[in-house]
Amino acid sequence: MEHVRTRVALLGSTGSIGRSVLDVVAAHPGRFELVAMTANRNTALLAEQVSRFGCPLVVVSDEADTAPLPSGVRVRRGAGALADVAALPEADIVVNALVGMSGLAPAAAAIEAGKRLALANKESLVVAGGILTRRRAQTGAEIMPVDSEHSSLQRCLVGRAPGEVARLILTASGGALRNHSRSELARVTVEDVLNHPTWDMGPKVTVDSATLVNKAFEVIEARWLFGIPQERIDVVLHAQSLVHCFVRTTDGSLISHISDPDMRVPIQNALFAPDAPPTEISRRRAWELGRLDFEPVDTDRYPCFSHVLEAGRRGGTAPAIVAAADEVAVSAFVSGKIPFDRIRTVIATTSETVKPVETDSLDDIVRADTEARRAASAIVDAVSRD
Amino acid sequence: MEHVRTRVALLGSTGSIGRSVLDVVAAHPGRFELVAMTANRNTALLAEQVSRFGCPLVVVSDEADTAPLPSGVRVRRGAGALADVAALPEADIVVNALVGMSGLAPAAAAIEAGKRLALANKESLVVAGGILTRRRAQTGAEIMPVDSEHSSLQRCLVGRAPGEVARLILTASGGALRNHSRSELARVTVEDVLNHPTWDMGPKVTVDSATLVNKAFEVIEARWLFGIPQERIDVVLHAQSLVHCFVRTTDGSLISHISDPDMRVPIQNALFAPDAPPTEISRRRAWELGRLDFEPVDTDRYPCFSHVLEAGRRGGTAPAIVAAADEVAVSAFVSGKIPFDRIRTVIATTSETVKPVETDSLDDIVRADTEARRAASAIVDAVSRD
Repeated sequence: MEHVRTRVALLGSTGSIGRSVLDVVAAHPGRFELVAMTANRNTALLAEQVSRFGCPLVVVSDEADTAPLPSGVRVRRGAGALADVAALPEADIVVNALVGMSGLAPAAAAIEAGKRLALANKESLVVAGGILTRRRAQTGAEIMPVDSEHSSLQRCLVGRAPGEVARLILTASGGALRNHSRSELARVTVEDVLNHPTWDMGPKVTVDSATLVNKAFEVIEARWLFGIPQERIDVVLHAQSLVHCFVRTTDGSLISHISDPDMRVPIQNALFAPDAPPTEISRRRAWELGRLDFEPVDTDRYPCFSHVLEAGRRGGTAPAIVAAADEVAVSAFVSGKIPFDRIRTVIATTSETVKPVETDSLDDIVRADTEARRAASAIVDAVSRD
Repeated sequence: MEHVRTRVALLGSTGSIGRSVLDVVAAHPGRFELVAMTANRNTALLAEQVSRFGCPLVVVSDEADTAPLPSGVRVRRGAGALADVAALPEADIVVNALVGMSGLAPAAAAIEAGKRLALANKESLVVAGGILTRRRAQTGAEIMPVDSEHSSLQRCLVGRAPGEVARLILTASGGALRNHSRSELARVTVEDVLNHPTWDMGPKVTVDSATLVNKAFEVIEARWLFGIPQERIDVVLHAQSLVHCFVRTTDGSLISHISDPDMRVPIQNALFAPDAPPTEISRRRAWELGRLDFEPVDTDRYPCFSHVLEAGRRGGTAPAIVAAADEVAVSAFVSGKIPFDRIRTVIATTSETVKPVETDSLDDIVRADTEARRAASAIVDAVSRD
C-alpha cells in the first residue's frame, strides 16, 4: 500500500529522543518526509542527519558553529526561528524533542497553530500544562505524548466508555538508589546515582529518577494530557520497568501497557497514529515477562517527590518554580557542589522563597522560572558553603 | 440519573454464575428487571429467587418437582421452552449460564433472534463457534463473554486501531497440580485435583483446569468471539490468576487486564455495557499486586491441552467430539472409575475413533456429541477394566 508521506518537523534532532525519531523514520522508507530539523550546537551531527535524510530547512542556536550543510538547505538561527518551525504550515506533525525550558515556546507555537504535536519535552506540560491544554481545546491541536508512561496511558485509555476511568497509575523503577538504606542515601556519589538500572538517559533525568522528581513531573503531565485531577493519579514502584502504567476502571479492574523500555515504542506510536504502529520493537513474549514486582512508594524516602506533587496541586507558577529549583539543584549535585540529600533542601527552600501566582500567561511562567533559578543558585551557594 | 430498566432473561439462575448474576442485579435496585428465569431441578432455590426478585415466567426441566412459586408466575418445562426464553421478545439481554451441551440450543436461539447474549456457557462456542458466529454476523446479535479471560480480552481490544492486534494471550493458573512432579501426577487423587488454588468452581471445570483442557476450550472460544485465527492465540502460565489476558499489538507491546478473580467483574461488564461497570468489585490497588509470575506452558505436562487445540485447528465436529470425550472422562475420574492420567487416553482414543466432519448444522454437532459420548463411555469401561 502506498502511503501519503507524513511531513515531520523535528525539533531537537541531535539529542537522544531526536536520534530515536530518526531511527523510526529510517525504518520506514517513503513513509515520512522531514520538512525541518533543529539542533542546539551539534551542527556536525545535524549536517550528517540532513545529508542522510534530506531536509530543506534547519534551525541552530545563535552561538552554533556553521557546519558544512548540503547545498540548498536553508539555515535559520535562534529561539524565534525555533517557534516558527513548530508552526510550519507544511508540517503534518511537529516533534518537540527539545530539552528544558527551551521547549516551552515551540510547544506553545505548535498548539497555537493547531498542529499534531508529538511532545517529548517534559517541561512544557509541567510548567505550563494548564495554559497549553486550555489553548489546545481552543485550537484543536493534538498532543501525542512521547514518553513511555504517557504513551502507555494513552493506549490504555483509547475506547474506554465515558466515566469508566477511575484512576491513573504510573510506574516508577525507583531509580538507581532504590536498594540503598537511608544512611547510605546521605553519602551516595554522582556515579552511584547515574547508574540507572533500566533506562539509559541523560544525567538530569537519571538524577530525577533517583529522587522520583521525574515521576512527580509525569503525574503533573498526565493530569493535563488526560484531564484527570491530580489526586486521582498514583505512582507505584515497579523494579523491572516493563509495565509502564495502569488505568483503574470504575469496577476496580486495572488495564496496563507493557513493553520493553525502548523509546522507539512511544515514538512509533506518536508518528503513526491513528494507524497501528507497525514494527515489532518490543519483542518480549508474555512468558518472558518472568517476574513482575510492585510496591507502594515510601514518600519519606523520596521527599522531593512530595514537594513537586505539592507544587502541582498548588498550580499557577508553583510547578515552574519547583522545576527550576530542581534543575539548579541537580546541576549542582552533578558538578559536585552539593551532596545528594541537599537537592531536597534547594527545592524546599526555593519553593518557600519564591511566591507562586495564578496566571494564564507564558511570560509569567518564564519570569517565575528565571526568579526561581536565581533563588535556587543562591541557596546552592549557601548550602555548598556549609 | 433514572435509567430505563434493562430486562434480563436469566437461563440457569440457580447455578454458580446465575447466583452471581443475581448478586449484581441485587446490587443495583431499579436498574434491571427479570423477565424470565430458568433452573434445571433446584426449584426450591428458584422459588426463593422468584420471590425475592419478581419474575413473570420460569422454565424448569421436565423432571423437576413443582415448588411453591408466587401466584401468577407462569411455569413452562423442557428444552423447547428454554430456547423460547432465549428468544423472548421482551428481553434486552439474555444471560446463558447453562451448564454443558444444554446451553447450545438456547445460545443459537438468542443469536437467531438478534439478541444481546451474555454467554457464560462454554460449550456453545467450543462445539459450534463457527456456526454461531456466522449466524451472529447475519442477525446482528451481540455476544458478551461472561468469563474472566474473554471479558478481559474484550476490554483490552476496545478502541484498538484496525490491524493493531497481532496476538491474543490467555493466562492459566496451571490448576491444582501445577507444582506436582510427573511421577506424582500419575497418582493424584480426586481431592488433590479439586483443590484449585485461585478459583472456586464446580468439579468439571476444576479438573479441566488441572489438565488445561479448560484453557484450550477458551482458546477456541476466543478464536470465534474475536475473529482471530487460532494460531495467533497463546496461553501463558500465571500462578496468581490476577492478570487474565494480554493483547499483543503490532509493535510487540502487551495490553493486559487485571482484576481479582471474581465472576461479578465480567458479569457486571456484560450487564452494563456499553456503560461503564459502576461498582468497585475488584479492590486491589496496583501496589497490592505484589509479585506476578509468568512462564511458558510445558505441553508435555499437559497432553490433553494439545489434543483439544488440535481438534480446534481441525474444526467441523472435531471440537464437539473432544469436548464430549473430556466430559465423559472427567466424570469417570471424579467418580473414581479411572485415574487422572487416563483422562488423556479417553480423549485421544475417542478422537481417533469418531471421525469429524465439516458442517454448518447444529444437528450434526449434536450427533457428533452423542456418538462421542457413547464411544468415550466404552473407552472408559475398557480403561477401568485394565
